[in-house]
Amino acid sequence: MRMADLSRATGVSVPMIKYYLREGLLPAGERTSPNQARYGEGHVRRIRLVRALADYGGLSNATIRELLERLGEPGAGLHKRLGLAHQAVMPRHEPGEGERWEEAARRAQELIARHGWEYDPDSPAMVAVTGVLFNLAELGYQGTFDRLDAYAEAAGLTAEADLDTLAAESGLERMVEYVVVGTVLGDALVTALRRVAQSNASARRFGGGTEGGEGGEEAGGGRG
Amino acid sequence: MRMADLSRATGVSVPMIKYYLREGLLPAGERTSPNQARYGEGHVRRIRLVRALADYGGLSNATIRELLERLGEPGAGLHKRLGLAHQAVMPRHEPGEGERWEEAARRAQELIARHGWEYDPDSPAMVAVTGVLFNLAELGYQGTFDRLDAYAEAAGLTAEADLDTLAAESGLERMVEYVVVGTVLGDALVTALRRVAQSNASARRFGGGTEGGEGGEEAGGGRG
Repeated sequence: MRMADLSRATGVSVPMIKYYLREGLLPAGERTSPNQARYGEGHVRRIRLVRALADYGGLSNATIRELLERLGEPGAGLHKRLGLAHQAVMPRHEPGEGERWEEAARRAQELIARHGWEYDPDSPAMVAVTGVLFNLAELGYQGTFDRLDAYAEAAGLTAEADLDTLAAESGLERMVEYVVVGTVLGDALVTALRRVAQSNASARRFGGGTEGGEGGEEAGGGRG
Repeated sequence: MRMADLSRATGVSVPMIKYYLREGLLPAGERTSPNQARYGEGHVRRIRLVRALADYGGLSNATIRELLERLGEPGAGLHKRLGLAHQAVMPRHEPGEGERWEEAARRAQELIARHGWEYDPDSPAMVAVTGVLFNLAELGYQGTFDRLDAYAEAAGLTAEADLDTLAAESGLERMVEYVVVGTVLGDALVTALRRVAQSNASARRFGGGTEGGEGGEEAGGGRG
């Protein structure tokens, strides 16, 4: 198909497609004349992929390009590629220092160890867990610490679902792409579902217009 | 304390504190002379709060200011305030159109209904759920649809933990602040824990260097 058809098929404007080509987000089409190229279904998919990563992952074009390049490199195993995808889509936080930071790091490690997970204490994900616990403590919201296992259990559920889906994909190329898609769209899904569930739980507990917090009793509605 | 002490207590530079004051992110101190003001513990906390929301929620200063202003408005009940906080920290996606979008919307609504949650089909969260499902289908990753209930179950777990923590807080002001803190830091926590859990599950299933995907069997390690 020509560029105009590619635009129609994806809903992305011709100038934007030209921008993707210039930025290396989209491979060049097959040249049919000095001024024309032909595009295929692979181009349609790539544009949808770039849009989804930008819209739902908030990833910059530079990050998307780097991610697609690194994932396309041959030879790395799936676990390695999953790591690369994580590195690209995980916001980086500088580790803190001092006694209170160390306490948060210990708490994070104990949490992960309780769930029997292997972990690298210096990975961006562990630094992020530590940073969240550190900030909660600094702001005086230690109450969250009593419920960390619920968060870890929920994370375990989604991670197993992620890997189940990945394992059911056939073909390395699709599995590799799903690492990225599943991570980015999965984050967006988890976050959005948490909002829906919070809103439901909040309406049930606080919806009556009371400002107080008596409704601490466990109600089963959200556990389906 | 003076501004220099406030800077030491928070680790935030004096020019940055002045910037926060100009931007309305930090209330003015108590003026003690034409060139000096005194700051209190409330200022220390507010700076920590602004930093946490920016670093872990990726929120812009404008969003943080709007959020703090709206949450400070008297009169609204907790459920309403939770909604305001959600609106501020939920990325906006335009609803799509067409048959395939409607199919994704139906799938999202059926999922939520299966878990017995009340929902507003036009809320930003439901539009986001629909958008994720739409994109997964467009990219050909319908395999995820078989595991949507695991994601919803996980979201329910975290939402109940969120509300449990909220209900255990005492005092309206802290509860209102926790709505924001718990939403933003909670998202970061859920995302980071999911990465740790994925990495663990991936190492277990694919770490042996095989490129294939035979490891679909459920292993219990992540469910600790």
